[in-house]
Amino acid sequence: MTPDTRDVLLPLEDVSRRVGLAPLAVRLEELRRWLQDDLVELETAIQATTDLSHAATTREEVGDLALRAARYLLARPGKRIRPLCVLLGARLGGRELTRPTAPGAPLDRGVRDLAIACELVHNATLLHDDVIDEGTERRGAPTARMVFGNSASVLAGDHLLVHALKLVESVGHRRLLSSLLETIHEMVSAEAIQLEQRGRLNPSREVYLSVVQGKTAGLFRWGLVAGGTAGGLDGDTLATLGQAGNALGVAFQLMDDVLDLTGDTATTGKDVLADLREGKLTWPFILASEADPGFLPALEAALSAMADKGDTADGVRAILERVRATGAVEATRRFAEAQAQLARDALARLPESMARGALEAVIDSAVSRRA
Amino acid sequence: MTPDTRDVLLPLEDVSRRVGLAPLAVRLEELRRWLQDDLVELETAIQATTDLSHAATTREEVGDLALRAARYLLARPGKRIRPLCVLLGARLGGRELTRPTAPGAPLDRGVRDLAIACELVHNATLLHDDVIDEGTERRGAPTARMVFGNSASVLAGDHLLVHALKLVESVGHRRLLSSLLETIHEMVSAEAIQLEQRGRLNPSREVYLSVVQGKTAGLFRWGLVAGGTAGGLDGDTLATLGQAGNALGVAFQLMDDVLDLTGDTATTGKDVLADLREGKLTWPFILASEADPGFLPALEAALSAMADKGDTADGVRAILERVRATGAVEATRRFAEAQAQLARDALARLPESMARGALEAVIDSAVSRRA
Repeated sequence: MTPDTRDVLLPLEDVSRRVGLAPLAVRLEELRRWLQDDLVELETAIQATTDLSHAATTREEVGDLALRAARYLLARPGKRIRPLCVLLGARLGGRELTRPTAPGAPLDRGVRDLAIACELVHNATLLHDDVIDEGTERRGAPTARMVFGNSASVLAGDHLLVHALKLVESVGHRRLLSSLLETIHEMVSAEAIQLEQRGRLNPSREVYLSVVQGKTAGLFRWGLVAGGTAGGLDGDTLATLGQAGNALGVAFQLMDDVLDLTGDTATTGKDVLADLREGKLTWPFILASEADPGFLPALEAALSAMADKGDTADGVRAILERVRATGAVEATRRFAEAQAQLARDALARLPESMARGALEAVIDSAVSRRA
Repeated sequence: MTPDTRDVLLPLEDVSRRVGLAPLAVRLEELRRWLQDDLVELETAIQATTDLSHAATTREEVGDLALRAARYLLARPGKRIRPLCVLLGARLGGRELTRPTAPGAPLDRGVRDLAIACELVHNATLLHDDVIDEGTERRGAPTARMVFGNSASVLAGDHLLVHALKLVESVGHRRLLSSLLETIHEMVSAEAIQLEQRGRLNPSREVYLSVVQGKTAGLFRWGLVAGGTAGGLDGDTLATLGQAGNALGVAFQLMDDVLDLTGDTATTGKDVLADLREGKLTWPFILASEADPGFLPALEAALSAMADKGDTADGVRAILERVRATGAVEATRRFAEAQAQLARDALARLPESMARGALEAVIDSAVSRRA
């Protein structure tokens, strides 16, 4: 299967058009054309990391079941926004590093490997997180652990993690390996904080922000800095890029929270309910419990009533209605927009370039998306 | 709690005395005195990696439950034979690297961190393997996952793995990080091969040897080479050390197989039964099924009969008796001894030294042990 960038960026364009953001849709279309070859090559390379058909040795080495679990997740591409950050970070260098010679020349191997690594780390943590959180759905399909079992998912995560680290090690920027290990350490710590929260409803801004920092923002930051490092940017510029990546990651997660309550899948409320049962309070829930003193007791009562009955649709609807009534959803959207603005402000300190414009389009689309 | 090297090496000495290996017991006693300070410092440092009492930031970062799961496993020291390999590899360098100045001076930081890393990688894979294999007992106690849950064990394994990689990265021998990543990759692949075997009884020497190579021998090899690298040994000597480590690891695993059938815990047969139900055929079982054409069908019948009834003791006893009757246990012991001899032969190519003698004692004790 030859991947198509239409899979990756077209949904964003469609969404932008649908919600009346035609100028953004045009910019994303430009971005897609500009990065077309790189994105196709990247997607091919990501899929090849778990290729069952040609890599007989890989199959024997890793074992079918774990490899199939990894492949199953990677075949549902998600947004690939993290590796896109790596590619754009590299292009920000001003040198046309990713296409050093002629159109059609292969993507710079180092940049490509850093981008793959970024995506593999993300997917490795998804595989482990779904085991840890007993997740049943991901990207609109059953989780890998539901299809291939917990054991295969744990191993698949280990495999992708080590593969990613080997890729970064082979690229040779010593500090990038060190910072990736630190980033993964923070991701593990954040997941552990979430595990600690299991079984209680503790609306804490501090807990939320340290989890989002560790689980999401860190890898966005690493991706941009890694790309920029490969592109030869200086230390100050890399620090600025890191700030932009961090804010973009926080904005991205906050919009996920908003979409959980308003998006296409919000109607079923399955994700919301699963999170609440795990003790995961997203930002709108934290704001709602601050604004409405009766909210938390009502939420607890509703959850235990739903646990007794089988039917949950009405209960979830009532909860969401009460959250919305506090204005928490709009406030979360504003918080996401403020973080996006921080990211834009950071980028504004860099010279204008095609790559900077592309990153700005990615930021805009992150807070405009409807899925 | 101040650890005591008596915990680490005394059991080996006791065993050596009990089974009439007084000369070996004396050598192990010498080894213990020689390494006394280093081993105490190492054990303290290993325990400190998951210290709950003083490391408030660590606790907050990693989350209590995952840290407690890691600590729970690390507090049951096992034999610490892998970090011992690192220390002895370093001393083989001829320079008294681990005590560069005076008695009482701290252990060389690099050597210490490599030794800790080696032990942490081992424990990380144990935490994940117990989740993958649904193991209920380890080192004579319930597994961490039985006490703290699968989620905490997966996270604890992730945490120890990343911690180990960060330690090796900080030591700064670039090739050691790369070879450790490759070693972990092989450990994951070997565990995946075992997962593939689940639910079938497939007596294959090839499968067994690739699993033992990946899961056990690789980390012994890495430990010796890492120590030797820190000790400044040249490439040829490191290659020789690697061969010794590899053979020692295989010998060690084969003796584990023997002890499963003859050791103190063999009387209950719980471990044997658990392995068989997972489709793990150890070397004596492979030899038995080659020597006795009726063995495999009888084994399958016995396992399914035991699955129907609750009582297993008689069934396991009968299986073990049939394995022993083929001479497979003694043949496995001889195979372990042959691997130990390969390790000794490799070491014989190095100049005589206190460190070489100590490593020879470790090899001898690995194939003489009764636990």
